[in-house]
Amino acid sequence: MKNLLVGQSGGPTAVINASLGGVISAASLHPQEIGRIYGMRNGIEGFLKGNIIDLTGMSGKDVNRLEYTPGAYLGSCRYRLPADLQDPVYSQLFEKFQELDIGYVFYIGGNDSMDTVSRLSRHAATIGSDIRFIGIPKTIDNDLILTDHTPGFGSAAKYVAASVCEIGLDASGYEAKSVTIIEIMGRHAGWLTAAAALSRKFEGDNPILIYLPEVAFDQEDFIRRIEKAFETKNSLIVCVSEGIHDAEGKFICEYTGSAGTDTFGHKMLTGCGKYLENLVRERLGIKVRSVELNLCQRCSIFSQSLTDAREAALAGSSAVEAALKGESGKMVSFVRTSDEPYELTCSLEDVNSICNQEKKVPLEWITKDGTDVSEEFLTYARPLIQGNPAIPMKNGLPDYAYRR
Amino acid sequence: MKNLLVGQSGGPTAVINASLGGVISAASLHPQEIGRIYGMRNGIEGFLKGNIIDLTGMSGKDVNRLEYTPGAYLGSCRYRLPADLQDPVYSQLFEKFQELDIGYVFYIGGNDSMDTVSRLSRHAATIGSDIRFIGIPKTIDNDLILTDHTPGFGSAAKYVAASVCEIGLDASGYEAKSVTIIEIMGRHAGWLTAAAALSRKFEGDNPILIYLPEVAFDQEDFIRRIEKAFETKNSLIVCVSEGIHDAEGKFICEYTGSAGTDTFGHKMLTGCGKYLENLVRERLGIKVRSVELNLCQRCSIFSQSLTDAREAALAGSSAVEAALKGESGKMVSFVRTSDEPYELTCSLEDVNSICNQEKKVPLEWITKDGTDVSEEFLTYARPLIQGNPAIPMKNGLPDYAYRR
Repeated sequence: MKNLLVGQSGGPTAVINASLGGVISAASLHPQEIGRIYGMRNGIEGFLKGNIIDLTGMSGKDVNRLEYTPGAYLGSCRYRLPADLQDPVYSQLFEKFQELDIGYVFYIGGNDSMDTVSRLSRHAATIGSDIRFIGIPKTIDNDLILTDHTPGFGSAAKYVAASVCEIGLDASGYEAKSVTIIEIMGRHAGWLTAAAALSRKFEGDNPILIYLPEVAFDQEDFIRRIEKAFETKNSLIVCVSEGIHDAEGKFICEYTGSAGTDTFGHKMLTGCGKYLENLVRERLGIKVRSVELNLCQRCSIFSQSLTDAREAALAGSSAVEAALKGESGKMVSFVRTSDEPYELTCSLEDVNSICNQEKKVPLEWITKDGTDVSEEFLTYARPLIQGNPAIPMKNGLPDYAYRR
Repeated sequence: MKNLLVGQSGGPTAVINASLGGVISAASLHPQEIGRIYGMRNGIEGFLKGNIIDLTGMSGKDVNRLEYTPGAYLGSCRYRLPADLQDPVYSQLFEKFQELDIGYVFYIGGNDSMDTVSRLSRHAATIGSDIRFIGIPKTIDNDLILTDHTPGFGSAAKYVAASVCEIGLDASGYEAKSVTIIEIMGRHAGWLTAAAALSRKFEGDNPILIYLPEVAFDQEDFIRRIEKAFETKNSLIVCVSEGIHDAEGKFICEYTGSAGTDTFGHKMLTGCGKYLENLVRERLGIKVRSVELNLCQRCSIFSQSLTDAREAALAGSSAVEAALKGESGKMVSFVRTSDEPYELTCSLEDVNSICNQEKKVPLEWITKDGTDVSEEFLTYARPLIQGNPAIPMKNGLPDYAYRR
């Protein structure tokens, strides 16, 4: 009988706590093998300071609440363990593991978090520790390799697709020519921006242009395409990843230039959407606005994908099952066995192969002119946004789990 | 037997089409009195150009779809009829009404639209026309007088409350001190920003400060309150109306100053949230970000309030019933007969008394220090965000109504 430790790390998603719930639920099914269930407060960084929370005996209702609660319930961190596995921080950590009689450690996170899992499991090997370390994937960016997709992406993609469609319906109410530029999260990988294509209701529908960071952005070509699009449509929606850049790799948001300073003399940090809004206004003199979808992309529960929430919980419970079977240094991965009907199984991948890698949208899934995504992407992404969860409500809002 | 004409005007809401659906449904119940059902394309402005759409015989399924479709289905406009009732535009309009054998005109909109209803009905009186004109309220701003509230406010309030709560949960995941400033729509009236208070889950919960345009904003006091709040809390959420201003009436967003120019030499237009973000960073040197909730506030369907959607439809059908009873120059208004249980009836008010007025949040509902709202506001607003509609889905997204 050993105890379990679970932590969350990196930016949260709409389903990061569903994975936590999956870990707790699965652990509770193994009372012979797993004793207490501890949570790291604020990831490995908080744990190092001795901040833990005892989750043992959490009620079924509270576990259910985790499924539709955004933000990291346990608290998160952005802390990387040192590359040198002999660094004294490892001894400190393993002493703490021993004090708490930990046998299983689960870490819910993205690239950096998988690096933490990798280092902890490699250190364990060097000292002959039998603690098992399993990574549970989590990122709206969908940029982890060796998995079909990541928990968190589906819900964010659904938020993006619904919002782009709704903003399009809102904007199309007026007769005058207008451009609405929607800036979507994703610095290096364009998965989430690509999801804007899911919003189209018919051939030729908005968004008329979709720009991902996988392809260089050409401002002149962009303006020409806007002018061209106005020949057949009055209300144009353009979707851009926050990380779009020119052929030299310079981010478009950096074009704001030194002239953009605030009253304090600081450079005004605005996104590429705001820059392109100004560009269109300057060059075409028409009505234009920009919308940054912002944090709601990763924390909106009303638009949570039921598929995503279930898969996130599955990733959590699969991690527990894997650890109990003796696995360590692995990340739970998703293997898609069929697009239609959509079928998925869980597998395990070596966490060392995954960390510090980045999966981008394949160039074959981006149209040749670099302004749209292909049918292959839609076939890939559509199953991930299906289903609306039934959300218990309180005072008109989701009855979220929270700690004071 | 006369025909019916309905139009939409001003900024859309999440339920503006539910009111349209209410008009169509109610009209269909009176085949003896109402013949064809025409829609103005792009409001009275489009109608003047002869743009109409025949809605007669719209299927029940399509009418249902209107209930959960954002944006103005008929198209909208921002056009005011001339104050001079002898202006030739009125003759043009009434000629067109006659051509189409219109007996009933319904206009769904806010302040400006009620002005249109007022002028049309007064012109009708001067020429002895018996066409009946009824206004159907619509605005997320909730700033129409002589009605308990306006259709559109409840859904926007629910979006704001849920988003503020979710952003708060997202932000509270980190240990470091941070401020998140959320900018909410409402230039002159703070109703929607006040709705952020609905997001609190316990006493002392975020948002820690709520600033409405009804009260002058003091930057120094704001900074002092942030410093004070950090004594008990690490992650602070502050909500501000886009229209907050100082004691002299200068908008806070105007403080961005002339130094804020873009690469084209234009003044960078940013909201007060961005300005306050920079102010906090400059003065306190801590982690701070700003989020503009933006267009999603008025078009998000996943967070639509069922109460709001039903009331919007009710406003539409009540307008039809009123016109059939011979009323004209009126706006449908809501009369609340009880807070708990929440009960509401429809009434009629003179549209001339309503147009060009603005209902602000009563000062008694704002705390003395001007940084929060009172329990009275919560009692008022809470019933309006209740209930989640069942939304028919297609390809993972709401099966919205649309015109190509």
